Amino acid sequence: MKNLRRRRQIDFAAAIEKRLVDTVITATTLTVDLGIRSYPIVIGNGVLGEYDLGQHIAGSDCLIVTNDTIGPLYLDACQRSLSGKAVESIALPDGEEHKTTDTMHLILDKLVSMGANRDVSVIALGGGVVGDIAGFAASCYMRGVGFLQVPTTLLAQVDSSVGGKTGVNLATGKNLVGAFYQPDVVLIDTNTLSTLDSREFSAGLAEVIKYGAIVDADFFAWLETNLDAVIARDTDALIYAIRRSCELKAEVVADDEREQGRRAILNFGHTFGHAIEKLQGYGDWLHGEAVAAGMVMAATLSGLSEKDVERLRALIAKAGLPVAPPPLATDDWLDVMAMDKKVQNKTMRFVLLYAIGDATVSDTVSVDALRSVIEGTQQ
Amino acid sequence: MKNLRRRRQIDFAAAIEKRLVDTVITATTLTVDLGIRSYPIVIGNGVLGEYDLGQHIAGSDCLIVTNDTIGPLYLDACQRSLSGKAVESIALPDGEEHKTTDTMHLILDKLVSMGANRDVSVIALGGGVVGDIAGFAASCYMRGVGFLQVPTTLLAQVDSSVGGKTGVNLATGKNLVGAFYQPDVVLIDTNTLSTLDSREFSAGLAEVIKYGAIVDADFFAWLETNLDAVIARDTDALIYAIRRSCELKAEVVADDEREQGRRAILNFGHTFGHAIEKLQGYGDWLHGEAVAAGMVMAATLSGLSEKDVERLRALIAKAGLPVAPPPLATDDWLDVMAMDKKVQNKTMRFVLLYAIGDATVSDTVSVDALRSVIEGTQQ
Repeated sequence: MKNLRRRRQIDFAAAIEKRLVDTVITATTLTVDLGIRSYPIVIGNGVLGEYDLGQHIAGSDCLIVTNDTIGPLYLDACQRSLSGKAVESIALPDGEEHKTTDTMHLILDKLVSMGANRDVSVIALGGGVVGDIAGFAASCYMRGVGFLQVPTTLLAQVDSSVGGKTGVNLATGKNLVGAFYQPDVVLIDTNTLSTLDSREFSAGLAEVIKYGAIVDADFFAWLETNLDAVIARDTDALIYAIRRSCELKAEVVADDEREQGRRAILNFGHTFGHAIEKLQGYGDWLHGEAVAAGMVMAATLSGLSEKDVERLRALIAKAGLPVAPPPLATDDWLDVMAMDKKVQNKTMRFVLLYAIGDATVSDTVSVDALRSVIEGTQQ
Repeated sequence: MKNLRRRRQIDFAAAIEKRLVDTVITATTLTVDLGIRSYPIVIGNGVLGEYDLGQHIAGSDCLIVTNDTIGPLYLDACQRSLSGKAVESIALPDGEEHKTTDTMHLILDKLVSMGANRDVSVIALGGGVVGDIAGFAASCYMRGVGFLQVPTTLLAQVDSSVGGKTGVNLATGKNLVGAFYQPDVVLIDTNTLSTLDSREFSAGLAEVIKYGAIVDADFFAWLETNLDAVIARDTDALIYAIRRSCELKAEVVADDEREQGRRAILNFGHTFGHAIEKLQGYGDWLHGEAVAAGMVMAATLSGLSEKDVERLRALIAKAGLPVAPPPLATDDWLDVMAMDKKVQNKTMRFVLLYAIGDATVSDTVSVDALRSVIEGTQQ
């Protein structure tokens, strides 16, 4: 374990060294191993506009799906990465409240108006909402066309661009409609984080911390030491944190593409988090903020040692994230959680920690234990 | 026979008088081989209500999706095949014009109102429209839940229930939105064809003839000899024709689940057929009727011997189907076909026949040859 940690620290040091020596833009690539649906994740600072996305596209027609915040900043660079292709674009309204089937139909209508056929590729340029809607549209237009992800928020880079989950919300629940649909490539340009506001950035850190908490105690420890550099958006620290997050998620997803079993551990903090989002009506708390408070609740429910709960709480607080949920009635919590997608046969399932870096899925949590955590962790 | 009949009465306490005159129900099963997505097709006369569909369902919640024509006839029998499960149902408005995203949302809303989780199963009871909408809803509700097909029209039994294509129409085109989603089981009860009107029955025969035309000259010859018995709905002839059609389609689909190559031969007659449907506004001609005329056009375009074109034309006519398209302007044909899903890189692709039972896909058809066929085969 110690050796592994040392090797990772050496890798990180080597990356810094490389940057000092090498002024040209370099990219690091990892592969999500899903058999014939495997795809590469390319990560680098300044890669958007330089990297040739066309090599992953069979046809010539492309539709860039972005939003009215990200488009003005990065659409030109994205088009440079698609030079030689016939590129059109569409800007969706920005915000989770627009993650609806109506918004998805804007994309479908645009594809029809382009006369797009099965060889079209849809490129999602933006955060998780853009990626989720565009991915679902790509999955179902003519039963599936090309799909490329260019995530521009930390959350999308470390979470929603890896694993193939796409979808939209219904009025009655989040992500109730969607598809498992793998992209052809994910291009992550850490430079796009320079325009991300600090609250959104912190929300993305919630998922980064989550990977350490559920599967990699060394990465958790690395974050305890290096989170300041990540928050300062130091390029090498960022690239390492993003790459390691993607690797860890990719490993879990590769084991269980369609979320039949182990992949469920990625939902650590999410059962509580989704309840917070739903009870707040989506938008009041960011997803990452809700997950952050949810992780502290789930760790408490796990019966983890107070020392380890405190380590988690401290790292979450350092990331600028809430460590407790907003005040909500206990019965509302329980009502909402019974509708969560993670429920199987009406039994509530929770991701619990044996220790930092070691998660499990439990369906034997009692309602009393749940009540106790809900009532004990209110702000 | 008497003993067997008595045993059936004991086994099925809910038996109604009709069953007293039934012969023993036997079912034949074939498997669509798609690796981990393989599934059985169970075929028999009177199997609905007798066969236990529950053995293919992991959870307990079930939603039967039917329409207001089929529901009154077969919903009770379908529920008997689901005994022991918690079964709800929804009846969609009948007709291709209702194959829309709005109708699909009726199913999604129903699932939400049931509090359905990932272990719910959706059972499509009806024709191709019900199967396509219900299958798409099942594919995307919570990113995919259980799906069973109980097709009650000949077309759905031999075509749309095999192969995993689901979807709905947009105003701008047929099946423009959908998913490849395999069912867990298909249950075909030939008894349901007793209530199918003869025009719909003939429309289904178009696809049966198609399988012979594209991959099995022996089956084509069998149809030339036995079509009268099939049309008379002789049980043994029907079961053979349906089973052989499903086998042939299953073989083609198993080779090419996501329609990258060989599966395209299943579109024989469909490029012309879809154009007829689109130019007529859907509904004026039935899908099978349009495909029938389309097959004669495609055979003519193939440069097939006049003798073989005539054999195809004669069999189609014997099935009570049109052998020529309605009068439509040539430029309208060409406009509409350029938007057909089968177009790759703006090159028109056609399924052509070298001979009866031997199809190929060509992308070298000239516009002149196409014009000539369109103008030569008008009614």
